[in-house]
Amino acid sequence: MAIGAGPEIERLMALLSKLPGLGPRSARRAALALLKRREQLLIPLTNAMQDAADKVESCRICGALSTQNPCATCADPARDKTMICVVEEDSALWAMERVGAFSGRYHVLGGLLSALDGVRPEDLRIDGLVERVRAGHITEVIMALPATVEGQTTAHYVADRLRPLGNGVQITYLARGVPVGGELDWLDDGTISHAFKQRR
Amino acid sequence: MAIGAGPEIERLMALLSKLPGLGPRSARRAALALLKRREQLLIPLTNAMQDAADKVESCRICGALSTQNPCATCADPARDKTMICVVEEDSALWAMERVGAFSGRYHVLGGLLSALDGVRPEDLRIDGLVERVRAGHITEVIMALPATVEGQTTAHYVADRLRPLGNGVQITYLARGVPVGGELDWLDDGTISHAFKQRR
Repeated sequence: MAIGAGPEIERLMALLSKLPGLGPRSARRAALALLKRREQLLIPLTNAMQDAADKVESCRICGALSTQNPCATCADPARDKTMICVVEEDSALWAMERVGAFSGRYHVLGGLLSALDGVRPEDLRIDGLVERVRAGHITEVIMALPATVEGQTTAHYVADRLRPLGNGVQITYLARGVPVGGELDWLDDGTISHAFKQRR
Repeated sequence: MAIGAGPEIERLMALLSKLPGLGPRSARRAALALLKRREQLLIPLTNAMQDAADKVESCRICGALSTQNPCATCADPARDKTMICVVEEDSALWAMERVGAFSGRYHVLGGLLSALDGVRPEDLRIDGLVERVRAGHITEVIMALPATVEGQTTAHYVADRLRPLGNGVQITYLARGVPVGGELDWLDDGTISHAFKQRR
């Protein structure tokens, strides 16, 4: 893409196009928006990214991205130490926190097991979770993993690793069913079948 | 949006969501992608943005964003000095350069006249264009402005400013018609009517 604007601008576009949700065309629009709004957007965003690059790391206890280590959630004495919610990624943790329904702590696996993508148990933060549960004081581990084949395979594997510890920890799963506002006509058969079997 | 990840990460998301094409959800995904790919994406993109903030400015002749001043196009002796292509934004200039059909120089207005948005002639780089044409050696000014009401109003206004200079400069407009691959059934009536009237 030779557009005569100089290698710096083309490099900026090329890197922006690697962000999820941005293709080559939207990356050009984003680059133009940044260059046109130098003071209001380009410089503040550059500083925010530099800040993030300097300060954000994975919490040594739960693996969540944070500017503190341990992260604010792990360090908060008001949060329930006996419950761990296991999530795939920080985005799931952020979603749970937005909802505000959970007052325990988290464990971010950092991905899901996948034979296809070559993700093995040792590539995820599973040993760390086993250690946390082995150390005691945990009464419930909630598997908040995606309702996909990889998500459920990972949940089963993790549960199999936790069960032999034999310290009475309960392993629970997010309920499956009709989402709020969901119309039956638009739902897939698997969801309807689940919701029917687990009716109450 | 309190997600417990610290103010730096929330600030990063808030700024990313100001980019065109990114809403709050895709900004979260983009932030996570950046933080997970620190070495491959976050740091290179931060450096590219810092580079752009430091080096990119508007060309003093044509107004194009460039790391050189005058820009590479204005400074290139191989490009036709007698033709100026007038565009709204750098994105249009980049599109023209990708096509490679034009070997003259450009003039970036920096926007379009709009009574609604309060954009007046003095807010655009129109005086600079008049000066370039007044200085002579220009035989053709091509209005490559959008085929919208604002685009055409701006083109008429600019043409009215250039015509009194009376140095025989020709003012031309991009052809209107059926786009390549366009099926009549999918085109708006205005385009079909234009294409019919200007049939050849």
